[in-house]
Amino acid sequence: MKVEGSNYHTIWLKPENEEIVCIIDQTKLPFEFIIKEIISVKQMVNAIESMEVRGAPLIGVAAAYGLYLACLEAEKSKNSFVFIENAAKSMKDSRPTAINLMHAIDRIMSEISPKETGKELTAFVLNKANELKQQEIENSYHIGLNGYKLIAEIAKKKPGEKVNILTHCNAGWLACIDYGTATAPIYEAFKRNIDIHVWVDETRPRNQGAKLTAWELGQQGIAHTIIADNTGGHLMQNGLVDLVIVGSDRTTITGDVANKIGTYLKALAAFDNNIPFYVALPLSTIDQSLTNGIKQIPIEKRDSAELSVMDGLCNNKIEKVEIYPKNSPALNYGFDVTPSRLVSALITERGICDANQKSILNLFNNR
Amino acid sequence: MKVEGSNYHTIWLKPENEEIVCIIDQTKLPFEFIIKEIISVKQMVNAIESMEVRGAPLIGVAAAYGLYLACLEAEKSKNSFVFIENAAKSMKDSRPTAINLMHAIDRIMSEISPKETGKELTAFVLNKANELKQQEIENSYHIGLNGYKLIAEIAKKKPGEKVNILTHCNAGWLACIDYGTATAPIYEAFKRNIDIHVWVDETRPRNQGAKLTAWELGQQGIAHTIIADNTGGHLMQNGLVDLVIVGSDRTTITGDVANKIGTYLKALAAFDNNIPFYVALPLSTIDQSLTNGIKQIPIEKRDSAELSVMDGLCNNKIEKVEIYPKNSPALNYGFDVTPSRLVSALITERGICDANQKSILNLFNNR
Repeated sequence: MKVEGSNYHTIWLKPENEEIVCIIDQTKLPFEFIIKEIISVKQMVNAIESMEVRGAPLIGVAAAYGLYLACLEAEKSKNSFVFIENAAKSMKDSRPTAINLMHAIDRIMSEISPKETGKELTAFVLNKANELKQQEIENSYHIGLNGYKLIAEIAKKKPGEKVNILTHCNAGWLACIDYGTATAPIYEAFKRNIDIHVWVDETRPRNQGAKLTAWELGQQGIAHTIIADNTGGHLMQNGLVDLVIVGSDRTTITGDVANKIGTYLKALAAFDNNIPFYVALPLSTIDQSLTNGIKQIPIEKRDSAELSVMDGLCNNKIEKVEIYPKNSPALNYGFDVTPSRLVSALITERGICDANQKSILNLFNNR
Repeated sequence: MKVEGSNYHTIWLKPENEEIVCIIDQTKLPFEFIIKEIISVKQMVNAIESMEVRGAPLIGVAAAYGLYLACLEAEKSKNSFVFIENAAKSMKDSRPTAINLMHAIDRIMSEISPKETGKELTAFVLNKANELKQQEIENSYHIGLNGYKLIAEIAKKKPGEKVNILTHCNAGWLACIDYGTATAPIYEAFKRNIDIHVWVDETRPRNQGAKLTAWELGQQGIAHTIIADNTGGHLMQNGLVDLVIVGSDRTTITGDVANKIGTYLKALAAFDNNIPFYVALPLSTIDQSLTNGIKQIPIEKRDSAELSVMDGLCNNKIEKVEIYPKNSPALNYGFDVTPSRLVSALITERGICDANQKSILNLFNNR
């Protein structure tokens, strides 16, 4: 998508030296657009943990490139395959909730053998990472093509009026490689000249809505308004939201959706006000082994300083401020689970389906 | 309640000079405890608008003292009664949602006559303000006595375990004169050695939970944890909340509750998880003229900079930071309305009642 008019992906190999993986440091947005060069698996683990790269589809791809960097390192220092296995483990441990990370690593690890080493292995893993990246771009593109129709239907019912879409956190192109998941239908609708406006949940504690979603919508020229996470219910009660679209970090085969903490509250409000609540996700985000999201999906607990320390611009410098005293205890869960009964439908690259096991399995089988 | 071990009210006359009204500047908490002296009605309007004094019961009392200051000013500059009428109007216009403000002003204005002026009028109005202050202290005290029983009941059902209470915003003693509304049952339960722990919603955009509720609970020694507003639903789904208690800025005679934006979302989550959701309020917060909260209660829209600019400590100085760029549009509603169907009961100074017209009228008639 566009950044100051130029097209970017969220992750790419440096053209001058393909042993370097480039990422956009998302912790610096929207204040600074900084491209960071990653040259080791350790740096990639750190980039995932610190959320310089974040978003379920992107961290899956980032982990694949991390495995490529591990192969490169093993090749150069003549490390054994155990080095690559350890790298895989440390990446899988870096964020517990997003399933794409586990899927990406497991898929590649299952295709390589401890007997292989050296250049060939590296080339093979790079090829797999590139394939996965391309696959996620296509997934997002098709999520957009499938999902925009839902927006178009609403637009048809209120000619001359804006369609108001609410989204939580950032399930934008920044969370993917391009287009996004929740934003893909929005970008497609915008491209097709549907008059849209997006309510952007601030998304405390890390403010990915206010910092990332608002920035990326602004860069594409899409009308949007940042609201406190507390505000969505009031807007829905007052007819100011036509539909909700969010992403997912992991969805069970039964349609329970783990997504950024607070998503469940918006789903409840949408349900209470008869507003459709859609979850946009590639099938790679679905965990076919789980049937009860609340009981089975591990919810990441993160440093409480993410809540108590805010960064922002102070006299044109990025500064960190403590917004309440250190001696106030705080707790910081990263995700919550929205039960399938509150989900109107899933928007995937293979089509739109109900949030239940039968419909989801149908999509999987419908190649 | 206690501040560093000494007892305070939120508003009082300066003992050395009773023409000065003292308030705690709540915009500086928890970083600085600053007592501010108010000597004119204009300063009082400003203190209410800028939320140096806030909370429905407190702004009612603050407005009464504002009227006293207006009488003093009129007396000294030999202004006509019109000056006092204008003062009343400007105070009523300063915050639209909290009904206590209108009630306090209307009650006093209805008891004074344009024919009266001078010292006697001033003394009369001061007396009324003092009475109202005393009344609100007693209201809060009795809300505590009535409400703690609900906590005690839950404690009985889980011996040896903490009772977990979730609250939103600050309906503490800082929002009243003493004890608070939502916090009054909490303080009473604590006094009676019930083992409690309070989940404190941060309460964006102004963070009254993280800044005020956490501070006042900490000052009294009550266990508490700050959470993002997004977190309550997840805690409720996982059995970590036993009851919710919030305050109200205006409640209809039918039991619809206007309170800080985001309250509705917590009520939905409590309802979805069979957790009792209580609203603690003096009867002065009930607007007997309204029967439909969502349609009839005016919801204050405040400056969007409250969302985009945060203050906090940076190198031991209070600094303001812009947490996202100025060119990102934002919208800031102060309150939302929780429909009565989601409210388990109202806790008032006259007893606990169901959130419906019949039960509420019973309390009013039951003097």
